[in-house]
Amino acid sequence: MSKSIAINAGSSSLKFQLLEMPEETVVAKGLVERIGMEDAIFTISYGEDQEYKVVEPILNHEVAVEKLLEQLVALEIIASFDEITGVGHRVVAGGELFKDSALVDDEVIKQVEELAEFAPLHNKAEAIGMKAFKKVLPDITSVAVFDTSFHTSMPKKAYLYSVPMEYYTEFKARKYGAHGTSHRFVARRAAEMLGKPLEELKIITCHLGNGASITAVDGGKSVDTSMGFSPLAGLTMGTRCGDIDASLVGFLMNKLNITDINEFVDILNHKSGLLGLSGVSSDMRDVETAAAEGNEDAQVALEIFVDRVQKYIGQYVAVMNGVDAIVFTAGIGENSKETRRDVINGLTWFGCAIDEERNNTRKEAIISPEGAKVAVLNIPTNEEVEIARDIERLRK
Amino acid sequence: MSKSIAINAGSSSLKFQLLEMPEETVVAKGLVERIGMEDAIFTISYGEDQEYKVVEPILNHEVAVEKLLEQLVALEIIASFDEITGVGHRVVAGGELFKDSALVDDEVIKQVEELAEFAPLHNKAEAIGMKAFKKVLPDITSVAVFDTSFHTSMPKKAYLYSVPMEYYTEFKARKYGAHGTSHRFVARRAAEMLGKPLEELKIITCHLGNGASITAVDGGKSVDTSMGFSPLAGLTMGTRCGDIDASLVGFLMNKLNITDINEFVDILNHKSGLLGLSGVSSDMRDVETAAAEGNEDAQVALEIFVDRVQKYIGQYVAVMNGVDAIVFTAGIGENSKETRRDVINGLTWFGCAIDEERNNTRKEAIISPEGAKVAVLNIPTNEEVEIARDIERLRK
Repeated sequence: MSKSIAINAGSSSLKFQLLEMPEETVVAKGLVERIGMEDAIFTISYGEDQEYKVVEPILNHEVAVEKLLEQLVALEIIASFDEITGVGHRVVAGGELFKDSALVDDEVIKQVEELAEFAPLHNKAEAIGMKAFKKVLPDITSVAVFDTSFHTSMPKKAYLYSVPMEYYTEFKARKYGAHGTSHRFVARRAAEMLGKPLEELKIITCHLGNGASITAVDGGKSVDTSMGFSPLAGLTMGTRCGDIDASLVGFLMNKLNITDINEFVDILNHKSGLLGLSGVSSDMRDVETAAAEGNEDAQVALEIFVDRVQKYIGQYVAVMNGVDAIVFTAGIGENSKETRRDVINGLTWFGCAIDEERNNTRKEAIISPEGAKVAVLNIPTNEEVEIARDIERLRK
Repeated sequence: MSKSIAINAGSSSLKFQLLEMPEETVVAKGLVERIGMEDAIFTISYGEDQEYKVVEPILNHEVAVEKLLEQLVALEIIASFDEITGVGHRVVAGGELFKDSALVDDEVIKQVEELAEFAPLHNKAEAIGMKAFKKVLPDITSVAVFDTSFHTSMPKKAYLYSVPMEYYTEFKARKYGAHGTSHRFVARRAAEMLGKPLEELKIITCHLGNGASITAVDGGKSVDTSMGFSPLAGLTMGTRCGDIDASLVGFLMNKLNITDINEFVDILNHKSGLLGLSGVSSDMRDVETAAAEGNEDAQVALEIFVDRVQKYIGQYVAVMNGVDAIVFTAGIGENSKETRRDVINGLTWFGCAIDEERNNTRKEAIISPEGAKVAVLNIPTNEEVEIARDIERLRK
């Protein structure tokens, strides 16, 4: 029996999924929240709808890892630690350094910490998670899987901003993108579903969740993506503004009497997007409900969301000079058939079409009509499986 | 004899063109530079290659207007002031107020001044130009022609940013666009050249000059445009950055130890774009030369320029769900056949194609092959003629 554990560490949280490999079946998953507090919340779901939940002091990530592993044994999910042969850590910022997932050693941990300037909260927590597992399970395969690696194949014209070149050469100011693990997973799966080699396909992958990004995947490689230097850019998101005119930053800071740029960027990250436009919620379902009830700001928020997705699809058709498949994934992508329909129905000139019946699903499916020029697919993403696959691939 | 004068006033300059209407022939054109200085430069070109040039004190715009009119008589370009029956002033920011060109009266001048918060240097100078003409030629038709009017037809989903809605309702923070007079002129001309009603055409107009913007013109109306709240956004320009991740503003200000947001936006406006990337020049011709000589930064600057144009074309095909014609205009658009070729050759999947022989021109021409699915046109822009037409149209 070989089990791998996929870890997504935040500054005060640790999300995990235990997978049986190579079967890729989920054995258990769970979450430690409020790490550092006396009343941390620790949840595991496993078996057939079984759930373990406890509130107890968990003062740091190392304790969280210990408790998690002990509880897996206590609940008889595993017989002993030996069953876990690999751990994979999701890392937000891999910079230009990590072009693929990497085996974790002290050097890698140091590099992840150094890359924290590109994702301050995330990378630090992820390095802590790596250290905690190294301590508790020193001998298993440990892999770092970067959100950015998939996008390191972008050409210079895609990742450079039109600012003085020394900002790139000196400060590494460039587009890095995000959600790479998800874009990679669904692009590969789309090729399998279409029964065609990934190398021959031009795919546009739309990862539409609370955070959202769209990637142009040409021959299996990311050639452009909508998130930028940070996850703030690109599409309209739950609370993030996506693309705006940089001049607006100065204009609005002046109007709002804000002198600290970080304070304003915080508004762009946490109070904008669907939430800022609708005034209702950052959650697409709430915005859809409000729109249906006649809230005009919610209606325009939905229109803007669809408009921006269509624009990125349009520009990536241009970037690849063609498209064979468009994939929807993540929270909104997988669950909002209305969003998928509205996006695709505005792109009929491209040869896109939706089959209303096929589209009435939340599961993996080709949702365009038979023989459509451009295939449209719904594919639930699975970043944990992709991480577990990387553990297998990189196992010494 | 009826002559109109089109005025483009800057903070220390006044550019003009005198046109015979309705023939639309240019009688004279010229420029007063360094207004406010003892050594202002005043140039008029007229007739067949005749030029008048003098360096003299011109201390304000009113004096500039007086000298200009007197000199037109002195050079026998006009017999008397009476020949000039109309003046048209180009105005950069018309906000949401001016949906069309407007007859200038005290109220309009006041409104133009109030809109200066959206274009501080420009609108103030333009109001001064209007006042100066009102004083010297009080009885002629005076018209204000706004760079933004053509774009006031954009739907809400196109002009709103995904920021808190009150930034729009309270501060009018939205996309206004620019170059409207040029986009309007070339869109109309494209329809004439194609022998089809403008109302039935989907046209993408690419105004590529030192400043550059692309507009989606659906049925004669602007439905989206690449410039935003200010002329900083959108394409890579001579010295402007176009679209960047707003997070970069904070990151780079920190790296550069800049605390004043205006100082950084100034870099984005004046030291970025082709100049910032290439390190060579803001002028496309210089960048092309450097690239041809092997300068790699210049090469990537050219690639980025083409990439961004292609992306905006792609997204506006999506916005309109189709395209009948793509128009190139302005300095780079009219003169760089290489740029036109490179842009179009990357869009063959859309049904775009270039006829190399037809493309070998700087004049008005259809440059796509006979029978191409998407017509591609080169159309020299003429904002002055468009202004003169507005004077005729609005004449009391």
